Amino acid sequence: MSILKTIQSPADLKRLPPSKFPALCQELREQIIGVVSSVGGHLASNLGVIELTVAMHYLLDTPDDKIVWDTSNQAYAHKLLTGRREQFHTLRQYGGLSGFCKREESLYDTFNAGHAGTGVSAAYGMVEAREQLGQKHKVVCVVGDGAMTAGMTLEALHHAGGLNKDFLVILNDNQMSISKNVGAISSYLNRTFTGEFYTKMREETGQLLSKIPHIGQDMQKLARRAEELARGAILPGLLFEELGFRYAGPIDGHNFEHLLPTLENVLRMKGPVLLHVITKKGLGYEPAVQNPIWFHACPPFVRESGAPAKKAARPSYTQIAIDSLVKLARQDSRIVAITAAMCEGTGLNAFEKEFPDRLYDVGIAEQHAVTFAAGLAAQGMRPVVAMYATFLQRAYDQVVHDVATQNLPVTFCIDRGGLVAEDGTTHHGAFDFAYLRHMPNMVVMAPKDENELQHMLKTSLQYDGPASVRYPRGVSLGVPMDPAPAALPIGKGELLRDGDEVAIVAVGVPVWQAVKAAERLAEEGVSTAVINARFVKPLDHDLIVSTAKRVRYVVTVEEGCKMGGFGSAVLEALSEAGVTGVKTKVLGLPDWYIEQGPQDLLRERYGLTAEGIYGSIKELIGSGAGQAVKEGALSASLTHLPHGDEQGS
Amino acid sequence: MSILKTIQSPADLKRLPPSKFPALCQELREQIIGVVSSVGGHLASNLGVIELTVAMHYLLDTPDDKIVWDTSNQAYAHKLLTGRREQFHTLRQYGGLSGFCKREESLYDTFNAGHAGTGVSAAYGMVEAREQLGQKHKVVCVVGDGAMTAGMTLEALHHAGGLNKDFLVILNDNQMSISKNVGAISSYLNRTFTGEFYTKMREETGQLLSKIPHIGQDMQKLARRAEELARGAILPGLLFEELGFRYAGPIDGHNFEHLLPTLENVLRMKGPVLLHVITKKGLGYEPAVQNPIWFHACPPFVRESGAPAKKAARPSYTQIAIDSLVKLARQDSRIVAITAAMCEGTGLNAFEKEFPDRLYDVGIAEQHAVTFAAGLAAQGMRPVVAMYATFLQRAYDQVVHDVATQNLPVTFCIDRGGLVAEDGTTHHGAFDFAYLRHMPNMVVMAPKDENELQHMLKTSLQYDGPASVRYPRGVSLGVPMDPAPAALPIGKGELLRDGDEVAIVAVGVPVWQAVKAAERLAEEGVSTAVINARFVKPLDHDLIVSTAKRVRYVVTVEEGCKMGGFGSAVLEALSEAGVTGVKTKVLGLPDWYIEQGPQDLLRERYGLTAEGIYGSIKELIGSGAGQAVKEGALSASLTHLPHGDEQGS
Repeated sequence: MSILKTIQSPADLKRLPPSKFPALCQELREQIIGVVSSVGGHLASNLGVIELTVAMHYLLDTPDDKIVWDTSNQAYAHKLLTGRREQFHTLRQYGGLSGFCKREESLYDTFNAGHAGTGVSAAYGMVEAREQLGQKHKVVCVVGDGAMTAGMTLEALHHAGGLNKDFLVILNDNQMSISKNVGAISSYLNRTFTGEFYTKMREETGQLLSKIPHIGQDMQKLARRAEELARGAILPGLLFEELGFRYAGPIDGHNFEHLLPTLENVLRMKGPVLLHVITKKGLGYEPAVQNPIWFHACPPFVRESGAPAKKAARPSYTQIAIDSLVKLARQDSRIVAITAAMCEGTGLNAFEKEFPDRLYDVGIAEQHAVTFAAGLAAQGMRPVVAMYATFLQRAYDQVVHDVATQNLPVTFCIDRGGLVAEDGTTHHGAFDFAYLRHMPNMVVMAPKDENELQHMLKTSLQYDGPASVRYPRGVSLGVPMDPAPAALPIGKGELLRDGDEVAIVAVGVPVWQAVKAAERLAEEGVSTAVINARFVKPLDHDLIVSTAKRVRYVVTVEEGCKMGGFGSAVLEALSEAGVTGVKTKVLGLPDWYIEQGPQDLLRERYGLTAEGIYGSIKELIGSGAGQAVKEGALSASLTHLPHGDEQGS
Repeated sequence: MSILKTIQSPADLKRLPPSKFPALCQELREQIIGVVSSVGGHLASNLGVIELTVAMHYLLDTPDDKIVWDTSNQAYAHKLLTGRREQFHTLRQYGGLSGFCKREESLYDTFNAGHAGTGVSAAYGMVEAREQLGQKHKVVCVVGDGAMTAGMTLEALHHAGGLNKDFLVILNDNQMSISKNVGAISSYLNRTFTGEFYTKMREETGQLLSKIPHIGQDMQKLARRAEELARGAILPGLLFEELGFRYAGPIDGHNFEHLLPTLENVLRMKGPVLLHVITKKGLGYEPAVQNPIWFHACPPFVRESGAPAKKAARPSYTQIAIDSLVKLARQDSRIVAITAAMCEGTGLNAFEKEFPDRLYDVGIAEQHAVTFAAGLAAQGMRPVVAMYATFLQRAYDQVVHDVATQNLPVTFCIDRGGLVAEDGTTHHGAFDFAYLRHMPNMVVMAPKDENELQHMLKTSLQYDGPASVRYPRGVSLGVPMDPAPAALPIGKGELLRDGDEVAIVAVGVPVWQAVKAAERLAEEGVSTAVINARFVKPLDHDLIVSTAKRVRYVVTVEEGCKMGGFGSAVLEALSEAGVTGVKTKVLGLPDWYIEQGPQDLLRERYGLTAEGIYGSIKELIGSGAGQAVKEGALSASLTHLPHGDEQGS
């Protein structure tokens, strides 16, 4: 690490002779592979943009010049070169460096982003701010080819292309987003890159012309025009040129002899310019080159072999959900599955294996995914949209305006609901209960364990309207599984234990924690009922209200935001039923963006463990809760299951 | 109306000789102009697609073949030809025909849509459903050029273009969406249509070749190739061909001699095909041709002159908001405004007039609009995004993930909050309180009248984080205006009247209704306090809790969905403060999609008038509310203000 250590900021990089860049890149790769192998993270994409990052910081004057990283999970080298080398080992850890760009972390991070496709919009906002403020700096946005399929990227290119401000977009084309790319733009870029047709055309034209030895001026003009047209028609530039950008490239994104002069060149160009750079995901670490999908966002791994450092003790919720889906799909040919570039993350690759013709991967295009599903449902199919809770946010209007308003039978498998750990702020599934439950016609479910999960999936697919099943990241609990999924009665919760002093109404993963807390309270003589609500909507009013009427305290528990969430629904039910004289407390995620950290730690921090629930109830009923929390008697509770041993985002 | 009367369904149309189509179109125009002049509606776009509608129903076998209308506000002729002629006068009225397609209304309406850009996704879902089910019918999607800038249209084209199923997309190009089109795609289509460059190129090539009399076979080949390339490079097809579609057109969408054979042709083509049809908005009604923006969605008008039938008694909330914005922008050059193809609807044309360089119309691209604003704010500007509540839904994730998470000072002017009347289900602003208030960092405001509106705008622009101001459709109340906007203390409500039996906590337009209700209750000896909350978030906990502690009943009032909305926030506050023994009631919009109808009527129906609030409170305290409602003593309340005399959606 001899060169890297000398770089405290890009100013040091600028003093380096470019001949040293390959050695520097080697050190950056070492550093990144080393840290990610021990803490997990986005490996493949980061290894692919190292040369590009060095070239940009060498030629630009950051932080005056602005670099916007679309999605920003590929900014590890950027972090290492901008004064964060010494903290780099804290990457993605609680209290450590973010795995994404973060304005709070560094002046060099211009925009926080964890969702793909926001970069060009944000960067173009910065361009217009520069113009309004009469400033002169450069704005560069690095966007992956995967994000090119996101509608908002195209919206932004279209807007920027229509005006004529200086703006550089670098298309980092590794021919892959998270999964394999799909669709027309991908094949467009591929076709282009190989450029066979273009090469052939040029040869052909050349041969033809060589057969006419005495061509006049007019003919030369025609030939030039034909060449121009050939370039225009076949080179990738055209799509972008039609959007108002000047196009340059494609160039090899790992070769400084191409990168530096070209980048220098395009940085001098006026107006909107798109530079097409070809890179290789995982370059420098063979296992990542071989399996860039697994290494897109990987858990800690053994450096020598690339194998996961830990083996999961039990299947993940994701696996259970998709296994159940596969079972149900065998019995019902109307079931099709839809994913937005997350075939592996959502586990749908298992579905695809058995039903290749019934799986639609639409690319990073969540809005289209949902309305496409609505169209399928409108014609009698039973589409299942599998998406992370945080990404379904991007299709809020499509759920409310296209699916729910028509009461169409679309099933939403909402994966990564609740706390997702190391990806942090932008990836926690904190809001889904709150944003789904106010949509008329929606059924909103969350299972207490993997056995209930399979039943909820069946419930949803049997229901003649929109329904969602939300489950967490991580391994399942290991409860016994019923032999087959069976539908649950819609809107019915279950009373897991009765009591007449306190009622805990919980939903999803915290349910078993609530039971533990209740057991402890009961041992101490506080008779405590536990309701597993199962349905955030429709809520089991009867069960909740009748129980509430028998107790003095009602406490709700959910792994989601408290504002407007499940607890809020329970308060509404009590209000509607005219229940008074009961003290209530809502437990869940507070009104701020949740930081990164292990699921267990965050659950503890936000009082969603058995101990936390117990402590809150003691506090509510006014007897020494603080002490109880300190005792830590429940530390071996169900939350302390293995984690982190499966793929991240 | 001699021909139109003979058409009960498209089957009758198919028996008509095409020579009669122009006369039929004339009748359709008459009918549409007549009804829209008396009830208001989307006039210009409907007049533009009459010939296209006739041609489609003539050549397709609907309802077996599926027509999906993107946005579907241009389906009036479609309705008239599919058995709804006799109800057509009920258009957009309470209990009448919808102004949009509606599956519940007719088998010929395949998909409900009120937001632009959903059509290609939905239609492509139907294509894949057909393939899965082994059916053979055709699926045609009609999409306007305005919706071509919506990201999800591009997502859908990209998906459909990548697979290879039979699918016809008709691009209805009237060179205008709601406002003038902007950006690269628009200029792309314009350039194309005039086709000057293409024509010139072809001439040039021809001339050149004519100068070489003895060209051999190779040279002919080269010439052909040049011609192909010229076509490819300059014709509009290329953009779509790059997306995997075969391109046909452009053709004149008002000429049956072009329309019928071309449409017949493309319907026989295999794979995804895009037919480019040029139409004229408003054709057949000169005022609409002259002013297609005003006639996009117009109130009732005088047929002879095209002038509005009624003149607004007072300025609309929209006008007040933008007037205030203009005032504030004069003092602060960092203020810029952003709209998504709604320059007129949001009133921003007044802002543009004074600050043409500080207005960004990004086209129908809500996602980009919001993240673009975030980029501006990240670099020190004070962007204001003006959007209807229902359309902001499309940028939910951009607000939560790009703006709020970074606590960026973006102001959201949320127009058409609450009930919007005739546009109905897809256009009511029912969900914004519920979907905004769970976002950390967001400030959510709604003024009780236009004077408070100007102060809230100032509050927002002075606040160093994201803030929204939500106001209703329609004319303002006519209250006295303070001379200048002044910032309000964040998170502070106001006690409008005190009382010790009942507390009404209201926000937004119903506040004055609540005061009326309280006055009546007080007259009857029920001492009633009224709090104008002003802030849905941060809620004025102190004022609300301290008042709640003094009374026996707390009633909340809002013009938004009850689930998870403002009332829910008040319940959370009471729970948190440990207030028990108080009976609570949440008044607002119920858990279903609200129908179309006049604002007054809907407010009455949902109990949001003074009378309704009074009645609910009487019921809550258990004394003859039913009787009170029947009396109708408050029928001259503040809700009965002029309405419908300004532009619709």
